[in-house]
Amino acid sequence: MVVTPLLDTVACPADLRKLDKRQLRQLADELRAETIDAAAVTGGHFGAGLGVVELTVALHYVFNTPDDRLIWDVSHQAYPHKILTSRRDGIRSIRQRNGLHGFTKRTESEYDPFGAAHSSTSISAGLGMAVARDFAGRDNNVIAVIGDGAMSAGMAYEAMNNAGALDSRLIVVLNDNGMSIAPAVGALTNYLSWLISSRPFLSLRDIGKQLASRFPKSFQKAAARADEYARGMLFGGTLFEELGFYYVGPVDGHDMDTLVPILQNVRDADTLGPVLLHVVTEKGKGHPFAKPSPEKYHAVGKFDPVTFEPKTVVSNHPTYTEVFADALVKEAEKDERIVAITAAMPGGTGLDKFAEHFPKRCFDVGIAEQHAVTFAGGLAVEGMKPFTAIYSTFLQRAFDQVVHDIALQRLPVRFAIDRAGLVGQDGPTHAGSYDITYLACLPDFVVMAAADEADLVHMVATAAAIDDRPCSFRYPRGEGVGVELPQDGTPLPIGKGRIVEEGTKVALLSFGGRLAECRKAAAELKALGLSTTVADARFAKPLDEDLIRQLVLNHEVLITIEEGSIGGFGSHVLHFLATNNLLDRGARIRPMCLPDRFILHGSMTEQYDDAGLQAQHIVAEVFKAIGQEHKVLELKAKA
Amino acid sequence: MVVTPLLDTVACPADLRKLDKRQLRQLADELRAETIDAAAVTGGHFGAGLGVVELTVALHYVFNTPDDRLIWDVSHQAYPHKILTSRRDGIRSIRQRNGLHGFTKRTESEYDPFGAAHSSTSISAGLGMAVARDFAGRDNNVIAVIGDGAMSAGMAYEAMNNAGALDSRLIVVLNDNGMSIAPAVGALTNYLSWLISSRPFLSLRDIGKQLASRFPKSFQKAAARADEYARGMLFGGTLFEELGFYYVGPVDGHDMDTLVPILQNVRDADTLGPVLLHVVTEKGKGHPFAKPSPEKYHAVGKFDPVTFEPKTVVSNHPTYTEVFADALVKEAEKDERIVAITAAMPGGTGLDKFAEHFPKRCFDVGIAEQHAVTFAGGLAVEGMKPFTAIYSTFLQRAFDQVVHDIALQRLPVRFAIDRAGLVGQDGPTHAGSYDITYLACLPDFVVMAAADEADLVHMVATAAAIDDRPCSFRYPRGEGVGVELPQDGTPLPIGKGRIVEEGTKVALLSFGGRLAECRKAAAELKALGLSTTVADARFAKPLDEDLIRQLVLNHEVLITIEEGSIGGFGSHVLHFLATNNLLDRGARIRPMCLPDRFILHGSMTEQYDDAGLQAQHIVAEVFKAIGQEHKVLELKAKA
Repeated sequence: MVVTPLLDTVACPADLRKLDKRQLRQLADELRAETIDAAAVTGGHFGAGLGVVELTVALHYVFNTPDDRLIWDVSHQAYPHKILTSRRDGIRSIRQRNGLHGFTKRTESEYDPFGAAHSSTSISAGLGMAVARDFAGRDNNVIAVIGDGAMSAGMAYEAMNNAGALDSRLIVVLNDNGMSIAPAVGALTNYLSWLISSRPFLSLRDIGKQLASRFPKSFQKAAARADEYARGMLFGGTLFEELGFYYVGPVDGHDMDTLVPILQNVRDADTLGPVLLHVVTEKGKGHPFAKPSPEKYHAVGKFDPVTFEPKTVVSNHPTYTEVFADALVKEAEKDERIVAITAAMPGGTGLDKFAEHFPKRCFDVGIAEQHAVTFAGGLAVEGMKPFTAIYSTFLQRAFDQVVHDIALQRLPVRFAIDRAGLVGQDGPTHAGSYDITYLACLPDFVVMAAADEADLVHMVATAAAIDDRPCSFRYPRGEGVGVELPQDGTPLPIGKGRIVEEGTKVALLSFGGRLAECRKAAAELKALGLSTTVADARFAKPLDEDLIRQLVLNHEVLITIEEGSIGGFGSHVLHFLATNNLLDRGARIRPMCLPDRFILHGSMTEQYDDAGLQAQHIVAEVFKAIGQEHKVLELKAKA
Repeated sequence: MVVTPLLDTVACPADLRKLDKRQLRQLADELRAETIDAAAVTGGHFGAGLGVVELTVALHYVFNTPDDRLIWDVSHQAYPHKILTSRRDGIRSIRQRNGLHGFTKRTESEYDPFGAAHSSTSISAGLGMAVARDFAGRDNNVIAVIGDGAMSAGMAYEAMNNAGALDSRLIVVLNDNGMSIAPAVGALTNYLSWLISSRPFLSLRDIGKQLASRFPKSFQKAAARADEYARGMLFGGTLFEELGFYYVGPVDGHDMDTLVPILQNVRDADTLGPVLLHVVTEKGKGHPFAKPSPEKYHAVGKFDPVTFEPKTVVSNHPTYTEVFADALVKEAEKDERIVAITAAMPGGTGLDKFAEHFPKRCFDVGIAEQHAVTFAGGLAVEGMKPFTAIYSTFLQRAFDQVVHDIALQRLPVRFAIDRAGLVGQDGPTHAGSYDITYLACLPDFVVMAAADEADLVHMVATAAAIDDRPCSFRYPRGEGVGVELPQDGTPLPIGKGRIVEEGTKVALLSFGGRLAECRKAAAELKALGLSTTVADARFAKPLDEDLIRQLVLNHEVLITIEEGSIGGFGSHVLHFLATNNLLDRGARIRPMCLPDRFILHGSMTEQYDDAGLQAQHIVAEVFKAIGQEHKVLELKAKA
């Protein structure tokens, strides 16, 4: 246990605000030590929090949270915030079942006015809160803390553009640590580097000058007139000033003695409209590891709190991510038109490996999913073979671009969709629940899901081969199931599934990663006297109509199962059956998919238990379908 | 007919490039006259094209299209481009069935390298093309023409940020006319106004100086180093320079004598990376109408080519848009917490009317759907009642924000979804096909569709009353069906449909605007001896399970029908039936929805004929379901 005498006296921000300013340095040090100690137990997002320890202390000291609204963008960095806001007790259970959520969450604390976890939402949400405050005639502050990586997303720009025009009082703290998840990319990063290098950090003396003198109230009024506004404010200003913000900075984000008075000045300069405070921090500041690795700092595994040695995790099989990356490298060796695109997730998607082999054929476009997809469209137009690797949950950001720029033009862009289905400790904000539904409704799309890592290799080859229309293949988070990997991928026949086990009474038709559970269920059903067929659909679009027809006609029960929401594979199967008269004479078909609620964080197994998509649930569903619910109860009693 | 002797000699851009530079002014004048004359016949997007007549001529004169790729953002403005690129013959059939598409389209012409119609995609697509060109070792130019409104969207910023870093040769022409569809809003607009007002238009003499001297090749190499780059380039630069572009401008976009040499210089300055050429134009330049109205210039109806008087269109019923706007105004009069948000479509969504009544409670955030939704979330957090009015097709841009910021946090944001289903002349790029599918899969969402304009009034009231979770209501483009409007909206019981006509043999269950077709079909079926129930589901989520159960159990056939894709209402009904054992003993259920292909432009009636969602198709589906296909043939023979 770390010794934290001062932190022990701070149960909530009100306690913090009773401290003397001179005690804040010590509090920050203790908070950092506590954050590290907790991370040793839990692993998780870590580097971001260490970088904002001083900022977290200073913000809660200067602002009257929770009445003042403090929004953490993405909120990877909110661990110290959680410790200071009455959640210290729970910090060692973070990201575990029934423990604290890994991100801010409205239902978890009144100090979390807006839940985050997807990037770049904070300015929009904060502006909404600021405008609502003005309506209500209240005078609380609204503060959005956003990283430089998140600032590169279009959404942040849209929000700044609107905030600059609305001129409502809003404080944006740009937490500039020169890297988001991966080292940040893009022109904005270069620009911020230059801003920092070309101006000295603001000193205590500068602050008053900068804030007090330049903004008389009357100027604010005049700001409505575009010309006046621009002439007075923008000439020689920063990008943020050009977008209508008052820019303050850069400021050393670890220097408590500057940070606190600057925040106080910003707080008290209440005639200002939107303000951007540029704070420079070091990600993973004070980390205890011998070898820093920027991307690894994003999230760490558990480690020894004394030696800081990582606890080794036994890994049985390669992860789907690794298998994807290796397979793509192999395909790219054969076809030089293959290029890969990531939106700021080279490590998470495995494309860092691809980039090692083909540095010029790998594009990290920053946190910019919309651009990533249409950029891929432009590449496809000119005959390249783009693979766009984006997690299911983040591809939602580019849905319109997928529909409008890719599907509608039938461009051969390949979507590699990692983290399909439930993803464990990151919880519902990162679950890949909807991609089957939102892709399989699009004309001409080929929609695949890998049941195991060998099939993933084949699907990469299939995607490389499909060159006349868009396609996607999804695969789960984590390790594969341990099947042998093929030397080379072989393109699969489009729209054809496979029978994995033959039976006569029950048919289980899986789309994606639940196949292993289907096999378990089949074994159990067999033992209980129900001969069971197991099939792997491979394609949600086009459907293997022959296979489905055969399964439904030759079995008493057909279960479809997928790691996705309603509207996806099961819905397409039902639609096919209905429109082909295959329901007319009766069919015991039961679509199993994610339930109609958000599945809370926990291990993936705990989540699938909760979601009812494990072998035992399949068995129960079969017995219910044949009117033998009592069997289910008997089985439960036995277990 | 207008007299166009010079234009008559230009069949394609190659002909244009044979002309003497001094003839281009005349060509532009003739092109403008032809554009106006064609618009008189067809109506349609008009003002944007008139604003870029000179630019269109100059671009095709200077650049070697189609080898040089010319991408028109949104492509409202592409009518003159179509006239010059071998499509003059078809220009009077634009937006009509089997006529030219209203936007650029790859399959229509080799001069359209990228189809557009949704805003702000051109820089991303162009960057993809530029990068692919570099791979292939080609040296063609890539030019993206984007309006100032489109430039306010996050996607354009993401693309610029990436282009500035990749440093591939790409020419972006910012067509600044100070308004997008509505007058442009946001800080960027103010900034552009200032840029224009603070600098004189570039003259012929300035151009060489600006382009020739400042960019030796070696500087480009150095640009990779952020500091050098920034120090040399950014100090005192424009926002575009801060994002890594070389800024040229502003330029008078109607002055052919400047435009051509500047474009030639930009073309020949081939050591530059990304260039932004800031061109100032007047939307609707040379329009023939007595009273200009900026927003009306976006799209016009047909008019007399001689007198320029608009041809009056007989309108029988108020449009859904008007009904929505009136209903929202009424609700807002009762509840001051109601606010409305549009993403640059105040006229299209009817919110201009709302803004007349409540100027401070209406927010036009610009072309920024992502921000619009999360901004609404921030408002909802603080107890406001936001109505976010976005067309179905454009709400796709904000899908992740709907999932992540609204649904996951169960925030009471109301989505008013206009242009649901097929939309006629704008074609597949504007069809509202997917919203039922992508919203009804989200937990806790209330998903409604209005069958007629009276129900729309009630749904506005229902949405105002639902204050514990998100909801949406969709309604078609165009006129209502002519039912009497209620004085005041009354909140509907959540998840309850209504029986419209009682029958015994066939049940038609409509979700949304196809109800009128169902009634027509029912009358026909009745006449043919099939007693038919017609029901209006009103809710796709939560489903009216009692109603569905009763319909399926008490009828021989159940048809569901909706103006949306697979995965929507019909899929939810099938899922409910399957999981509640209601298919086990057989059910003749036929889900009718949009077919699995994109429906081309035409009138809405032509489109629904094509899609197979008219009364006659319902009748045919019923007869097919009961095994009497011959009846269908007989009916066809009679008709």
